[in-house]
Amino acid sequence: MIQLRQPYVLFLGDAPDQLAAKTADGIARWRPDLCVGQLRLPDCKADIGLPDMTLEKARAAGAQTLIAGVANRGGIVSEAWRDTLLQAVDLGFDIASGLHGRLSAIPGLKERASAQGTALHDVRYSDRSFPIASGAKRSGKRLLTVGTDCSVGKMFTALAIEREMQTRGVKATFRASGQTGIFIAGEGLCVDAIISDFIAGAAEVLSPNNEADHWDLVEGQGSLFHASYAGVSLGLLHGSQPDALVLCHDPDRDHMRGLPTYGLPAIDACIRLNESCGRLTNPACRTVGIAVNTSKRSEDNALDLLETLEQQTGLPCVDPMRQGAGRLVDALPL
Amino acid sequence: MIQLRQPYVLFLGDAPDQLAAKTADGIARWRPDLCVGQLRLPDCKADIGLPDMTLEKARAAGAQTLIAGVANRGGIVSEAWRDTLLQAVDLGFDIASGLHGRLSAIPGLKERASAQGTALHDVRYSDRSFPIASGAKRSGKRLLTVGTDCSVGKMFTALAIEREMQTRGVKATFRASGQTGIFIAGEGLCVDAIISDFIAGAAEVLSPNNEADHWDLVEGQGSLFHASYAGVSLGLLHGSQPDALVLCHDPDRDHMRGLPTYGLPAIDACIRLNESCGRLTNPACRTVGIAVNTSKRSEDNALDLLETLEQQTGLPCVDPMRQGAGRLVDALPL
Repeated sequence: MIQLRQPYVLFLGDAPDQLAAKTADGIARWRPDLCVGQLRLPDCKADIGLPDMTLEKARAAGAQTLIAGVANRGGIVSEAWRDTLLQAVDLGFDIASGLHGRLSAIPGLKERASAQGTALHDVRYSDRSFPIASGAKRSGKRLLTVGTDCSVGKMFTALAIEREMQTRGVKATFRASGQTGIFIAGEGLCVDAIISDFIAGAAEVLSPNNEADHWDLVEGQGSLFHASYAGVSLGLLHGSQPDALVLCHDPDRDHMRGLPTYGLPAIDACIRLNESCGRLTNPACRTVGIAVNTSKRSEDNALDLLETLEQQTGLPCVDPMRQGAGRLVDALPL
Repeated sequence: MIQLRQPYVLFLGDAPDQLAAKTADGIARWRPDLCVGQLRLPDCKADIGLPDMTLEKARAAGAQTLIAGVANRGGIVSEAWRDTLLQAVDLGFDIASGLHGRLSAIPGLKERASAQGTALHDVRYSDRSFPIASGAKRSGKRLLTVGTDCSVGKMFTALAIEREMQTRGVKATFRASGQTGIFIAGEGLCVDAIISDFIAGAAEVLSPNNEADHWDLVEGQGSLFHASYAGVSLGLLHGSQPDALVLCHDPDRDHMRGLPTYGLPAIDACIRLNESCGRLTNPACRTVGIAVNTSKRSEDNALDLLETLEQQTGLPCVDPMRQGAGRLVDALPL
């Protein structure tokens, strides 16, 4: 599993717009205490509202890892970043990247990091091996966010539930299965980067044995109804052994993400399939609520939709962004 | 996709018993015409009934690839094989291995192969990248063998159906998704070795567009009910877009393979889940029959069991080893 030294300095590079800094924005939103500042190149068009810092100042403020969480065309490590990244390593920073391109593609960076004893983390890739899943029941409680589709708020929902539980004094840990989640949690694994024989085994490693009243809040991936990624979703579901599922849904999609000819599944079919498959490794698995991304709707329209869906399903339906995750946590057997 | 030059010489090494040569045995059973002979070290205890040959003789007989399909403790490439494999490369053979250990672990072998221009195939590993599945419907017909568990006869059943179809003059191609299957087909991919994001995409590559009346007979892997491997099975199911499923079953297991506390799924639940998931990418997907491995039973007992199961399910139930695959092929919309 990837583990990052904290706190961070968030490197925004030469981000062409605010959206390119989405990952850094998510880190600053959920873990402001872990971010000493932002580092921007002269032509950077993004600003996530943290203090601007030089590498030296960030280091003096205690930052251990530089996060290159910025998106750019092609997902490569930009030439324009080279000097900054080399200098960061010289100053003793670890570097963590969520890009498709590997950090080791920067000439000299790997050697310099090796000489300095600092780590380069390409969080999209998995270089370590995992066990075959044993299916053995683990102690502690687990909740998994599942989806009708990709990118419907599964990470956001798991984090909102973690925040609500911690506010209530419930022992809870967010477990990251994707790159932004890993930056936020400081550890985790990109489950879609694992060799397929080991998906469920990696998911077992992600939420290990814990105290009986502790909740792991596992970030889901993809959807059992996504023709490209369902295998990842099923392995993560089996290995997570969830007691509780929260179904995440975007009501304003015409089709499955990336698949123009595939419509979205019905909510009840999605609940049924996830519960049925989840019960293989945890017979107690059940859906406790639905998290709906209503960001494209007015407040009134959103609340109407949530009420209608609640009547249809008999489950608490909330938009955690508007309303928080309180009613989802209320529905859990704490 | 892996592609092997044919014909083969089958290397049995220092196999400690007949069972260690199971893979070679499977190749010789299904593709006798592709095997010029067997090559055994002095202390080999296995014999698959092919002419014994030296490397030189096998080469003279036209063999292009040496298959190291023998199992040994730990799955490593044995020290005792080193001289033979080096010599094989010098004589111009490609080498294909189904072991866990990589051929490149043999000192000097990679360099020698590179100099000779011959290929080393570690078929358990996938070094090439595959596309994300598009879900786009492909032309041609597809049958996938699925299972209640691992190792219940999915490869055997797909091959038996291919043989029966070819006997009847139906256009049919066995598509290999595991190592022994790849040796038999001469091409294919180990779907459990693919990065999990690309499972369904790799399965799409495995059975490409074809003539409308051509059948791809795709070798299934694992089971949707196997807590370790179900993600592989689901990705393969989605990417294969099968028109027809044949469920493979071993009626004499106490528990799922490798999982002592997991019982086998009910046949009807297994059919239901596979059909329901299969219909995501091919709405016409349906189960046409059941292939039962009755090898642990007497003939009478086996036939009774098949008849009972046939009454329960309303589907043709056969043991392809005892009875051939004729009734399964009869059930297809040819």
